[in-house]
Amino acid sequence: MSWNVAIAGITGAVGQEFLRLLEQRNFPAQNYKFLASERSAGKKIQFAGKEYTIEELTDKSFQDVDIALFSAGGSVSKRFAPAAAADGAIVVDNSSAFRMQDDVPLVIPEINADAVQKHNGIIANPNCSTIIGILPVWPLHRANPLKRMLVSTYQAVSGAGWQAMEELKTQARDVLEGREPKPEIFSYPCAFNCFSHDSTVDAQGYNVEEMKLVHETHKIFNDESIAIAATCVRVPVFRAH
Amino acid sequence: MSWNVAIAGITGAVGQEFLRLLEQRNFPAQNYKFLASERSAGKKIQFAGKEYTIEELTDKSFQDVDIALFSAGGSVSKRFAPAAAADGAIVVDNSSAFRMQDDVPLVIPEINADAVQKHNGIIANPNCSTIIGILPVWPLHRANPLKRMLVSTYQAVSGAGWQAMEELKTQARDVLEGREPKPEIFSYPCAFNCFSHDSTVDAQGYNVEEMKLVHETHKIFNDESIAIAATCVRVPVFRAH
Repeated sequence: MSWNVAIAGITGAVGQEFLRLLEQRNFPAQNYKFLASERSAGKKIQFAGKEYTIEELTDKSFQDVDIALFSAGGSVSKRFAPAAAADGAIVVDNSSAFRMQDDVPLVIPEINADAVQKHNGIIANPNCSTIIGILPVWPLHRANPLKRMLVSTYQAVSGAGWQAMEELKTQARDVLEGREPKPEIFSYPCAFNCFSHDSTVDAQGYNVEEMKLVHETHKIFNDESIAIAATCVRVPVFRAH
Repeated sequence: MSWNVAIAGITGAVGQEFLRLLEQRNFPAQNYKFLASERSAGKKIQFAGKEYTIEELTDKSFQDVDIALFSAGGSVSKRFAPAAAADGAIVVDNSSAFRMQDDVPLVIPEINADAVQKHNGIIANPNCSTIIGILPVWPLHRANPLKRMLVSTYQAVSGAGWQAMEELKTQARDVLEGREPKPEIFSYPCAFNCFSHDSTVDAQGYNVEEMKLVHETHKIFNDESIAIAATCVRVPVFRAH
């Protein structure tokens, strides 16, 4: 079997990682469609020895698509994933837009692969810190159900995308050369500094990243009784290639 | 009243901070004695408008000293603090050498200032993360006794001293310019990286820094019933002056 695959958000850091993995795994796709905002439409892209033209993401993009991988942020997913699903594509969404929706399976294959079988066209994958955090916990939970889980994250600035990574490098040079770093992507200087994850903080004092860990773990483990306390912090780390 | 004050470890990052604070507070000292290893003996030091000569730290250094501030590492404290106390000095020790000894008060003035009154010549101050961690917890504990305390630290590389701070700067330049960083002070590269605190890891998987937080909190709060889980991690942060 062979599929028509679309990727929405091809120009982002995660879009590029999709390409790397699809090529590495020699994914059995019949055809690829690379989608992005109007700004990037028309640009050429090399993939697996072929040249593709980036197309603008619209409601009509998915008419002959079997699998649509979305990683262009929550608002883009909210806007276009339902149209893709309505046109018969199976959407695998990397954003938080649909994760907690009842009819959307939230899947870590090593934990709840079976959950993919009941969907309405959209399948979500969890937040990065949820995946990394609970994969090793799952076998422990099965052997002896968790009562309490304490999570502290040390999350790379580069997780916020290309521009954040560049901001870290620029600011690191600034600090080393005695200049004042100027934050643009984040609210605080990120070089040689740590701060609470750059997501909204709720009335209880938890940031959204911390609450994702709580809610997503409950959904994936199908157990709301686990008491989870998470502390999510950005640290000045990037993956050097 | 006015005291003769000695500082052991004057050339270290903490020794220098002692000087800054003593001058800022206009500490009522009659005389100062600045002590360091043989290597630094004879060097001149400026303090509060006067020039002093650094003397070698020996067993005989404390014969007319009233207060001896030690911050030259645990082994130096173990070797010389008992001699200082025997000669009548009151030692305030910044190292972990005596903290858990029964006849040594472990004091955070805002929490248990009274504890200083019963000592045998040595008073210890706690580890940095204990002080910062439990100061805000103390009034909560008094209002409603703690059952459980979860601590995650994000500890600056510069907490390991001048050389560590220089290693961070050098490695940051290396990474930014595409060179491989070479760890010397730490076991891992510290630039754009985080790792478990650089202290010994015990059989349970906790590092010494984490267990200090547990034991010191129990001693200072005088309550061993509090369940404490600490995660201590070094982050690539330094204080830029």
